[in-house]
Amino acid sequence: MTSPKISTGPLPASSKIHLGGSLHDIRVPMRSIALTGEPPLTVYDASGPYTDPDAQIDIARGLPDIRGGWQRLRGEVAPTAARPVQPADNGFATGARLTPAFPVRRDPLRATGGRAITQLAYARAGIVTPEMEFVAIRENEGRIAAHSRDGEGFGATLPDLVTPDFVRAEIAAGRAIIPANINHRELEPMIIGRNFKVKINANIGNSAVTSSMEEEIEKMVWAIRWGADTVMDLSTGRNIHNIRDWIIRNAPVPIGTVPLYQALEKVGGVAEDLGWEIFRDTLIEQAEQGVDYFTIHAGVRLAHIPLTARRVTGIVSRGGSIMAKWCLHHHRESFLYDRFDEICEIMRAFDVSFSLGDGLRPGSIADANDAAQFAELHTLGDLTRIAWERDCQVMIEGPGHVPMHKIKANMDEQLKHCHEAPFYTLGPLTTDIAPGYDHITSAIGAAMIGWFGTAMLCYVTPREHLGLPDRDDVKTGVIAYKLAAHAADLAKGHPGARARDDALSRARFEFRWQDQFNIGLDPDTARAMHDETLPAEAHKVAHFCSMCGPKFCSMKISHDIRAEARRQQGLTDMAERFREGGAIYVPVAGPDAEPVA
Amino acid sequence: MTSPKISTGPLPASSKIHLGGSLHDIRVPMRSIALTGEPPLTVYDASGPYTDPDAQIDIARGLPDIRGGWQRLRGEVAPTAARPVQPADNGFATGARLTPAFPVRRDPLRATGGRAITQLAYARAGIVTPEMEFVAIRENEGRIAAHSRDGEGFGATLPDLVTPDFVRAEIAAGRAIIPANINHRELEPMIIGRNFKVKINANIGNSAVTSSMEEEIEKMVWAIRWGADTVMDLSTGRNIHNIRDWIIRNAPVPIGTVPLYQALEKVGGVAEDLGWEIFRDTLIEQAEQGVDYFTIHAGVRLAHIPLTARRVTGIVSRGGSIMAKWCLHHHRESFLYDRFDEICEIMRAFDVSFSLGDGLRPGSIADANDAAQFAELHTLGDLTRIAWERDCQVMIEGPGHVPMHKIKANMDEQLKHCHEAPFYTLGPLTTDIAPGYDHITSAIGAAMIGWFGTAMLCYVTPREHLGLPDRDDVKTGVIAYKLAAHAADLAKGHPGARARDDALSRARFEFRWQDQFNIGLDPDTARAMHDETLPAEAHKVAHFCSMCGPKFCSMKISHDIRAEARRQQGLTDMAERFREGGAIYVPVAGPDAEPVA
Repeated sequence: MTSPKISTGPLPASSKIHLGGSLHDIRVPMRSIALTGEPPLTVYDASGPYTDPDAQIDIARGLPDIRGGWQRLRGEVAPTAARPVQPADNGFATGARLTPAFPVRRDPLRATGGRAITQLAYARAGIVTPEMEFVAIRENEGRIAAHSRDGEGFGATLPDLVTPDFVRAEIAAGRAIIPANINHRELEPMIIGRNFKVKINANIGNSAVTSSMEEEIEKMVWAIRWGADTVMDLSTGRNIHNIRDWIIRNAPVPIGTVPLYQALEKVGGVAEDLGWEIFRDTLIEQAEQGVDYFTIHAGVRLAHIPLTARRVTGIVSRGGSIMAKWCLHHHRESFLYDRFDEICEIMRAFDVSFSLGDGLRPGSIADANDAAQFAELHTLGDLTRIAWERDCQVMIEGPGHVPMHKIKANMDEQLKHCHEAPFYTLGPLTTDIAPGYDHITSAIGAAMIGWFGTAMLCYVTPREHLGLPDRDDVKTGVIAYKLAAHAADLAKGHPGARARDDALSRARFEFRWQDQFNIGLDPDTARAMHDETLPAEAHKVAHFCSMCGPKFCSMKISHDIRAEARRQQGLTDMAERFREGGAIYVPVAGPDAEPVA
Repeated sequence: MTSPKISTGPLPASSKIHLGGSLHDIRVPMRSIALTGEPPLTVYDASGPYTDPDAQIDIARGLPDIRGGWQRLRGEVAPTAARPVQPADNGFATGARLTPAFPVRRDPLRATGGRAITQLAYARAGIVTPEMEFVAIRENEGRIAAHSRDGEGFGATLPDLVTPDFVRAEIAAGRAIIPANINHRELEPMIIGRNFKVKINANIGNSAVTSSMEEEIEKMVWAIRWGADTVMDLSTGRNIHNIRDWIIRNAPVPIGTVPLYQALEKVGGVAEDLGWEIFRDTLIEQAEQGVDYFTIHAGVRLAHIPLTARRVTGIVSRGGSIMAKWCLHHHRESFLYDRFDEICEIMRAFDVSFSLGDGLRPGSIADANDAAQFAELHTLGDLTRIAWERDCQVMIEGPGHVPMHKIKANMDEQLKHCHEAPFYTLGPLTTDIAPGYDHITSAIGAAMIGWFGTAMLCYVTPREHLGLPDRDDVKTGVIAYKLAAHAADLAKGHPGARARDDALSRARFEFRWQDQFNIGLDPDTARAMHDETLPAEAHKVAHFCSMCGPKFCSMKISHDIRAEARRQQGLTDMAERFREGGAIYVPVAGPDAEPVA
């Protein structure tokens, strides 16, 4: 069955195209936007098969297995018996309250002989994996040359074109990761690194208070439709094992989680009762399901907690507060820190990437860049070294609430102390005074920190601080962050970024309204806003809109000026002969006036 | 009659208070927000009498004359016979199509004996006017000391407290202006300068295609309700004289216009037919009505026009394109440039401030910071000197579409070439690819350029490039710009800015939901978003929201940790005794669960 609730179908004027590899048998999806006035525009496409009319979407069967064969070829992974699902995995939900298990069962893959099968291990061994070639092609968006080279990169190295070996080298250096659990075979690989396009993450997940399985899948599909590059499932409450299965089997993008949330559910929400065994079991449970990256709050150390005592908003990371409570109760370092080696052993066996959590990120402007925040950041740098020794891929989580003048220091500290591992930041929010608009307070900080070098931006929705985001909030948050990430690419001088701006500006200047809508990040909203005042089809080629009306359209007047200039030799004799030209005045008879001669 | 269409009444939990002057008989309005957990918070209030329950609002009578007496006392202005209204002033509208004249007639004031009665002239003479004391009190927002001092001001000088003489000195230096036409007697004066709070402007105005008089007044009232510091009436089409009268008589904030628009209407939209006489007549017409600042595109010189020939989006300023067309047609410098002296004579007789227009601002990322844009900026610097010699107040218009890495150069060039006259910028928009979301693409650039030193930010609404903004677009644009301006104040290190953030963060951390909503820029939206999932009154004190639910609220856990810490001597013996403390787990029974013991 195709669920009627899942959003499918191409975006306006768009079709799915696939580019092949030269090293591996891969098909890299792109979105081609048909234009009326110039050749089609090829753009990055995170939306997966859902926007492909040729794809058969059935959430009960999941997306096709496109990666399973890749590791088999390498012969370094083998199917193993899956850890049996336990009642606690779904919060002891039963009967009607239990979300049904995903219908298709598959034995999980695992590295054989305790070897590391991570992208980092292969990169260091000089091997260009299919994932690496896939992202190399994907990053170029069909370009065969640089579009423009103009920007301030703050030390970023952005090649005109990304090659598979450049990807390999960046991963080997730890500057980039491809979050790709070997059990997430439905994944279309993507890369997170300062020398690639800035990415964005969207959070979904039910809370104990609201929402269901279909809703969460649709939120994921909806988020990637508008451009989310990865999705974190932050579900809490019951059924999270089964809901996660449904999400991963239907996800073409990397899925991240915070395993601590499920572990806490398993001990009935009593932080003090958490322990290594139950946490370890949860890591394996989720790794076998195919989670691509885990947020691990191993940087919250006992000695950091007193540093938060005088904060205005204390500890605002869920995982951070849970671990701080645990540390105080037992008065010892957390099992995440003590057992970090053993965590690495699990991560490397499935190639789950670390997202080292910022449990002590500031929750208010007043707490930004304080001792607690930076003490944890330095610890994350130490843990990065350890993870790298085990061939584990690592990114570092950061910001929260940070005023503009303190943003760059975050990037500089992270680059210095975390050895250029990719930075993954929430916002930052640049003021605390706009609840209901924190997608904007944070898009400001996100664009800036993305420019400075952050590799992935975790979105914030309008509902932040107020409640669980709904479908509209998710879309608004994703679009706000796509434009922030793009503004960052432009400022860094990404060689391909400006192609889309320039195409849209040409369409705008030439009054190709349909093209202007379709090149934009949200064609539906742009078209609807325009048509509210000028619905007639004739106005899709009109040389004005309702903002200025026909007489006062500066672009129309610019055309008059240029048309004249074209008929002239130069400016000197233009003025005289200009009088022969036509007037620009067009009588106005209301919305249906047609100003074009 | 009180028009039912006008939005009146206080914002939630807010009351209007007035602070008196020590030098002059003035009443400076402030907004006091009542809080449940701490003393009331006093904030800047641009909303005028409309949010004062004691005020009698009747748009047919207009707002009270609070400034008329001020100039009389100085005895340097006198009533004169008003220029007779001509049919062309209202686009020859007649009968039912004619917007009725504003009912109350008043002889316009004008400087006597050709003297300059501008705030700049008085400031230079060492006179502290009522307007200067008014804005000094207003800028301090009821503070009697600095709240915090932390930021990067890029050369801005922000005193702990603003004194009347500091205001006078800043105006005398040309670094700030108080746009206050002597005929706008309803005005609550405000100041625009780099060493004061960053201000925002909202544009309203009908176009030939849509909207009416009542709508425009309500748009103005609606814009200032949410925080617009000035409003530009960009009306075109018919009835603009009468609509402007209605707007100014009901406006407590400075009103700006682009007189060229009305002049063009008077010549039937034929740019070539424009001339000095009709423009001069329009300046006097609008100066007598009380317009506080005029955008004058005198910087568009004949020699600049060829510099736009290879632009992707040509000339995107309405006024700029009109003047460029005129210059080419007549092949000479514009009458705005040639007659600049005579324009100054009119401005100084009414104290209309110059907003020197950026007719050649870039309309796309591709055109940012180009030769045309900066050539005009340098001309504006020359004109600033001339205006200052005539004791005229001046601000400079800037940006448009500018990628992040090119924003600071705009501020630096402006400071250098325009002698620190206040900068007033549109956005800038940091990418072209998000039509429908340009309030966000531009809030990013606006926050940054405000931080760098821009004194006033001209808002952009979601409808930009697509149509004339409606009431909702106006509110969204204003809120987006209020938060951008505030983010800029925070980053500059404004001594009062963080008070509001800190108050909101305390409310947030203490789960004072009502306070959190009420301190925010848009209490209505924040409350509505929260209540959508947790409507019960009990949840207004609940220690969680639907985002994380009770078990996973990091702030609640932080409180548990602190409560414990308070009971302890220190951290060393805390762990042991912590076991005596209560668990944090609260059974979840859906949205009505009450987690507080």
